Amino acid sequence: MAGSNSTQRLRDLIDTGFGSNSSVEGGRLINSDGSTNLRKRGIPFWERISLFHTLLRMRPGKFFLLVLVAYTSINLFFAGLYLWAGVEHLVGGDQALTFPQKFMEAFFFSSQTITTVGYGRVAPSGIITNFIASTESLIGILSFAVMTGLIYGRFSRPRAYLLFSSNILVAPFQGGKALMFRIASYKNNNLTDAEAQLTLALHVLENGKTVTRFYPLKLEYSKVNSLAISWTIVHPINEESPLYNYTKDQVAQSKMEVIVFIKAFDDHFSNIVQQRTSYTWQQVVYGAKFLPMFERAENGAYTLLELNKINLHELLELPAKVEN
Amino acid sequence: MAGSNSTQRLRDLIDTGFGSNSSVEGGRLINSDGSTNLRKRGIPFWERISLFHTLLRMRPGKFFLLVLVAYTSINLFFAGLYLWAGVEHLVGGDQALTFPQKFMEAFFFSSQTITTVGYGRVAPSGIITNFIASTESLIGILSFAVMTGLIYGRFSRPRAYLLFSSNILVAPFQGGKALMFRIASYKNNNLTDAEAQLTLALHVLENGKTVTRFYPLKLEYSKVNSLAISWTIVHPINEESPLYNYTKDQVAQSKMEVIVFIKAFDDHFSNIVQQRTSYTWQQVVYGAKFLPMFERAENGAYTLLELNKINLHELLELPAKVEN
Amino acid sequence: MAGSNSTQRLRDLIDTGFGSNSSVEGGRLINSDGSTNLRKRGIPFWERISLFHTLLRMRPGKFFLLVLVAYTSINLFFAGLYLWAGVEHLVGGDQALTFPQKFMEAFFFSSQTITTVGYGRVAPSGIITNFIASTESLIGILSFAVMTGLIYGRFSRPRAYLLFSSNILVAPFQGGKALMFRIASYKNNNLTDAEAQLTLALHVLENGKTVTRFYPLKLEYSKVNSLAISWTIVHPINEESPLYNYTKDQVAQSKMEVIVFIKAFDDHFSNIVQQRTSYTWQQVVYGAKFLPMFERAENGAYTLLELNKINLHELLELPAKVEN
Amino acid sequence: MAGSNSTQRLRDLIDTGFGSNSSVEGGRLINSDGSTNLRKRGIPFWERISLFHTLLRMRPGKFFLLVLVAYTSINLFFAGLYLWAGVEHLVGGDQALTFPQKFMEAFFFSSQTITTVGYGRVAPSGIITNFIASTESLIGILSFAVMTGLIYGRFSRPRAYLLFSSNILVAPFQGGKALMFRIASYKNNNLTDAEAQLTLALHVLENGKTVTRFYPLKLEYSKVNSLAISWTIVHPINEESPLYNYTKDQVAQSKMEVIVFIKAFDDHFSNIVQQRTSYTWQQVVYGAKFLPMFERAENGAYTLLELNKINLHELLELPAKVEN
Repeated sequence: MAGSNSTQRLRDLIDTGFGSNSSVEGGRLINSDGSTNLRKRGIPFWERISLFHTLLRMRPGKFFLLVLVAYTSINLFFAGLYLWAGVEHLVGGDQALTFPQKFMEAFFFSSQTITTVGYGRVAPSGIITNFIASTESLIGILSFAVMTGLIYGRFSRPRAYLLFSSNILVAPFQGGKALMFRIASYKNNNLTDAEAQLTLALHVLENGKTVTRFYPLKLEYSKVNSLAISWTIVHPINEESPLYNYTKDQVAQSKMEVIVFIKAFDDHFSNIVQQRTSYTWQQVVYGAKFLPMFERAENGAYTLLELNKINLHELLELPAKVEN
Repeated sequence: MAGSNSTQRLRDLIDTGFGSNSSVEGGRLINSDGSTNLRKRGIPFWERISLFHTLLRMRPGKFFLLVLVAYTSINLFFAGLYLWAGVEHLVGGDQALTFPQKFMEAFFFSSQTITTVGYGRVAPSGIITNFIASTESLIGILSFAVMTGLIYGRFSRPRAYLLFSSNILVAPFQGGKALMFRIASYKNNNLTDAEAQLTLALHVLENGKTVTRFYPLKLEYSKVNSLAISWTIVHPINEESPLYNYTKDQVAQSKMEVIVFIKAFDDHFSNIVQQRTSYTWQQVVYGAKFLPMFERAENGAYTLLELNKINLHELLELPAKVEN
Repeated sequence: MAGSNSTQRLRDLIDTGFGSNSSVEGGRLINSDGSTNLRKRGIPFWERISLFHTLLRMRPGKFFLLVLVAYTSINLFFAGLYLWAGVEHLVGGDQALTFPQKFMEAFFFSSQTITTVGYGRVAPSGIITNFIASTESLIGILSFAVMTGLIYGRFSRPRAYLLFSSNILVAPFQGGKALMFRIASYKNNNLTDAEAQLTLALHVLENGKTVTRFYPLKLEYSKVNSLAISWTIVHPINEESPLYNYTKDQVAQSKMEVIVFIKAFDDHFSNIVQQRTSYTWQQVVYGAKFLPMFERAENGAYTLLELNKINLHELLELPAKVEN
Repeated sequence: MAGSNSTQRLRDLIDTGFGSNSSVEGGRLINSDGSTNLRKRGIPFWERISLFHTLLRMRPGKFFLLVLVAYTSINLFFAGLYLWAGVEHLVGGDQALTFPQKFMEAFFFSSQTITTVGYGRVAPSGIITNFIASTESLIGILSFAVMTGLIYGRFSRPRAYLLFSSNILVAPFQGGKALMFRIASYKNNNLTDAEAQLTLALHVLENGKTVTRFYPLKLEYSKVNSLAISWTIVHPINEESPLYNYTKDQVAQSKMEVIVFIKAFDDHFSNIVQQRTSYTWQQVVYGAKFLPMFERAENGAYTLLELNKINLHELLELPAKVEN
């Protein structure tokens, strides 16, 4: 059995995509928020990141703060230029006498220019000030175009909005046992044609060196037509599983990590959405099964999905023979 | 026969995606407009809905009303701020003497600021009023960006624009009978590679408890290359069907529901579009067949599709042996 | 042979998607620009068309004209409102004495408001005029959002940009003959994973009634990895073809139509693009083959694709036995 | 063996999509940046290019310059119109006496109009000047809509961001040898379901004429689930390969070109992204293998991908028998 299991393992190395030669990696591979625990080096920072997508993924508060900072900075910069060109070329603002007054007029004139509100109480005259204002209003229009793109991009970025159970259970399953975790869609969208892909990462000793080996995990069902309620994803730990005969200790020693990739078609975005996460050996609960997380509404007219129960499980005995 | 039918049922449970453990649901599963008859609980309301998509799906009139309300509210709010800062800092508006006059100047100055129209008859002076106006114009620009995104998103949201017959018929079919309903595309778009997926939901007694069981329904043709005219979707009620030997009463008792999911490629959006609906046992017409809904134009030059005839059917006898 | 051919035909009826019951259609099915020769009736006009997509597909000149007409109309409408409210409430425009002068001030004030340019030489005063102006500037902003969406939608609408040969040839092919036409991509984009789907429509007499029958046409190659140069799409007229043993006269009598549907992945749009057309029996050239439409550049450094040669063919004899 | 190899070649001609009749091409087929080495002729230039996509693909600096040039040109044009209509109709700008002063007022009034900033120190009066200004502000709004579309389109254009090794190696592989090159994703995105497609182009003598023949190249793995780290794409040069028994000289003589097409699903864009390149016979390194380009970080907490090492390889002996 050990022999056939090894063969199995070799065969299973195929197509995990983490590279058959990726044997010297460090730490966890995928963080639980789905990002890769990977750093890139060797090309300049600005070529390595996608600024647009970084701005799309930023938290709303941070994004809004950044907009405020940029707006203030650009106004400060142009206020400086108008002061340098002379406040006397800002008709209506030229009565300002003290520096703070001058600065204020220049600063707010800048803000009126960049937003194209242009009240005109203060207005540019002279070629230099006019040139600066003309350039600033163009920059304003371009920034606004960028802004519109960013805001639309933020709104329309397809996301899966999936909730994952915080533990992965080793539960009794068809006389044996199985790895199980649970997902649910928590927004008012509809996911169809959902597909799950699990990759197991084990850090094992080979020829005295710790290398990371990857195995695809076979699922009871890897696809469902609709992800309306909740979906318990089940990997049976049978003879075909790379985890067959693995003890709790071996799981911990090998720093087991289960990389989860979910893909579905979302009717909100009319696009494929996806979400990743990973469970590490610390998140495994041995001998437990999930309890229902939905129920019939009291009046029987609809189904009630209780999202806060996604991790609800009860402990129980595992079949003795299998845990060896 | 009953035996093989049960086996069939068990096998058919696979992959419907409504969850093999979803046995305690309430009421209809899918509403006829395609939304899920499901409520979610356990996480805050704002995390449960997608505001952007809610605004995209809102009816045009309601959406426009919401825009008006938001526009008025924000102007009222800023009018309050300008009044608080002092109308004397609104140059040109400072001749207003009575409170209603002051309020009016502040309110309309606000609207001129947020839309960036900025006539300038009324213009801000002083650091506080200028600061408020500068912030308001930024908010204006950002709101406009949001607006542009929402309006573009509303227009460009892929939708299937399918009309469904209001009844599902039990019609004679190849010596036996079949479930049939009809769809047609009612807009000037072209749907290709259309695909239909039907799931049957039956509420049955198992061990003294009512549970919901799901079965995929096999179709005569589940795909068509083009959805130019109309498509009659046919589920033959033969030995492979979970409805084989089901009587009218059993259909009603089990509160039968047929969940319909249509997917196609749309040349308008160059995207996959989809639409869902469901038929309940009350919508079944026993012994009927659809009548044609298109005809050659009088001059023979084109085909005329009559959308108001989508549900047109005539009653007829069903094969006696089958209805038992 | 006739017998097996009939069987073939029956089998081939499957899955063309024009409906197995579409036997009473009129005229050509697909126009050569790819639109469907179909009219819809029975639901109101505005529900039958997609305004957004009609505006996206409109020719640029017509679209720009429509924008101009809308801009002028809306300004005329608001000019009327300002005149009704009294030009004396347009500060700066109130010196106008004659009606044409008043109208001009009102009209151009409206244009300054709706574009949010708001110079302010003319500015609103009084609650009614201010209210109208405030509403107009909101409408301006919303229209602009619509405009931005339309213009972006027009630019970014995935299109295949394919040129089709204007004739479909019956050419000698592998000892027999074949239907052939040619396509080429004429823009600076790259099409990959291209796929062709041909449906044959024949109007035949059945039980004394003219009905339309549809058959998928098998292709030599229905997919190519890349559509870099040109692609000659070939349907061999062999024993499997519904056109086997069809004479020229039969083709004409049956008003043969070949419906062509091309689908490919476009790197410009990073999306699937598609184009349809159809060839009728009048466009068939019997006994002809295409001549090359590309050549090595004089200096040998690149390939030159000559798009004006797409229909270039020479006449030749067809194998005698087959034309019967 | 030579015989079966020829048969193989004939069979392999199928489905490369470069056209089975593309025998008279010139030079390299695909440039290393992925563009096609192809020129099109026979239809007007403007119909041959997609202006929108050309602007999307333009380098940022060039794009910004173009915007500046367009902004200046349109202001010069409208300045001319205002001068022609008479500066005396620009209220506030009418004190300008010399031509340069007049021109300046007209030019900056134009820039205030097209950006819709409209300070109003200078404002139009009279029907002609008002009409020009009204038209210009409409053009301004439309240009801005175009701008927004372009900028959003530039940001959101799906791109693969792949780095390719600059050489393609002939490396020892499973007792024989194989063609190998390496790719890595260099941005902070995640690519999944990656797929590689290789097409070999050989210029060979047939009947005394040089023709180009295309062959798909079979890969060890043509798909990987995730492209997290780096992917070495391997074509084994075994009996099934069209390059089997090809000597270095033959490779050079036939001006071998390997056309590479990579496709993957990108989580940033939630879309399929793709990238093409090609390797010519000059880029082949005989007898070499790639060295690792990633390592465990010093603290062991993450993996470090060193992008500058993508082409790092060491020279070594190839199995003697195979190189004949």
